Amino acid sequence: MSLTDDIALAHRLADAAGAAIRPFFRAPYAIEDKADASPVTEADRAAERAMRALLDAERPRDGVVGEEYGTTREGAARQWVLDPIDGTRSFIVGRPIFGTLIALMQDGWPVLGIIDQPISGERWVGAIGQATTFNGKPARTRACRTLLGAQIATTSPHLFDAHEGEHYLGLVAAVSGGQARQGPVYGGDCYNYGLLASGHIDIVVEAGLQLYDYAALVPIVEGAGGHMCDWSGEPLTDACDGNVIAIGDPARLEDVIEALAGAHHAH
Amino acid sequence: MSLTDDIALAHRLADAAGAAIRPFFRAPYAIEDKADASPVTEADRAAERAMRALLDAERPRDGVVGEEYGTTREGAARQWVLDPIDGTRSFIVGRPIFGTLIALMQDGWPVLGIIDQPISGERWVGAIGQATTFNGKPARTRACRTLLGAQIATTSPHLFDAHEGEHYLGLVAAVSGGQARQGPVYGGDCYNYGLLASGHIDIVVEAGLQLYDYAALVPIVEGAGGHMCDWSGEPLTDACDGNVIAIGDPARLEDVIEALAGAHHAH
Repeated sequence: MSLTDDIALAHRLADAAGAAIRPFFRAPYAIEDKADASPVTEADRAAERAMRALLDAERPRDGVVGEEYGTTREGAARQWVLDPIDGTRSFIVGRPIFGTLIALMQDGWPVLGIIDQPISGERWVGAIGQATTFNGKPARTRACRTLLGAQIATTSPHLFDAHEGEHYLGLVAAVSGGQARQGPVYGGDCYNYGLLASGHIDIVVEAGLQLYDYAALVPIVEGAGGHMCDWSGEPLTDACDGNVIAIGDPARLEDVIEALAGAHHAH
Repeated sequence: MSLTDDIALAHRLADAAGAAIRPFFRAPYAIEDKADASPVTEADRAAERAMRALLDAERPRDGVVGEEYGTTREGAARQWVLDPIDGTRSFIVGRPIFGTLIALMQDGWPVLGIIDQPISGERWVGAIGQATTFNGKPARTRACRTLLGAQIATTSPHLFDAHEGEHYLGLVAAVSGGQARQGPVYGGDCYNYGLLASGHIDIVVEAGLQLYDYAALVPIVEGAGGHMCDWSGEPLTDACDGNVIAIGDPARLEDVIEALAGAHHAH
């Protein structure tokens, strides 16, 4: 199986997921409808089933790790890692900035990743040894000469525990110089990493991500000239704690790690 | 001048602003380009100029209050209030969830409002005595029977001062029951109020808004069945502090005010 074939299949997976998801976006739903699955749950499951059906037909020997339906063929060297809706909260409130995440892991390392936004029709594709694309055109991260003024994004401050939150605020202080309106932009989930790959965001930091949250992001960010690692600068392996840095300009990585660590030493 | 004529003009203002804004969205820009105006600044100014040119031609006696170019004909009974790009941070990072805000105030009261998202082509229109529309179809807020589990949104926690932040966290606790993943969704600016009008968000709370940030929202939210007021439940007048509640189901308003006040009494 060539990487080209796998990329073509990954596009078909994203197409299938999008077709499954779109009917549920902004579907009427009252919070008190506890008896029925919510639209996001239905969309999540329908999209993962559609992708699994294609993988079972086209790659019957590959493993599949999905957020909704768990792991199939756990020992396989090739593993498809699926998060049908990353950014469920964005989906729930009707924001078109959630994404379907598709990764192919080879011997534990992500070699192919897709972020697909099925409402706006936006798709980032990254593959090892290739330039990342956004809707078929090359995507590049941008240079960032100083941490002060850099554009930082993270989904929600409530997703850090108290300890992580202190470290995070150290980075916020370094980036914003204490000005609230220069601080992080919130919300966004996987979409932030796509925008980083396209050169609109400089830094994304998050905590407690699962493999299916970040596997697809690594080839996209790195194929665009950026870098991903954990909060100590170590590679993101299966064993990592899910505390993630994505940086558009790797020349600023040491500054970010230092700013994250600084808050800790100050306490 | 009939309200129908004013609504037709407001659509043309939104069209003109969108045409001015779109070329600057996701335009390449390095943070260190201090010498040049940023794309968001250029887009903001171009959009306000386009709207002012139309108003000068079509409504030469009306006042205009704009975020970029200040106030014209201050004493006029009719005032157009313009925020060409609400959600500049969303614009800067390339998220299509910022908005152009257009309001018509009559004797100090907003009688007409538009939220326009010029990238996705989404437009909410509200006018006194009329049902709010989203892309031409009726928009309605949804019922919300309990505060626990209600969907709350706000742009950024850094936009509250320490005192406001304590009140805000009282509301977060009441909504989430202490579960981070049930907490508020962040980012969004004016787009949150549109999604509230369409029944996808139950509550938006924000602090320190200016007249041009909220004037357009009031007819949209209220014409969809919701309500807007300050954190004490008082109407949003020119003299208010810009601390705003928007609620989809007015039956929950007292609960929201109580939860916001509760944090204060606890300290």
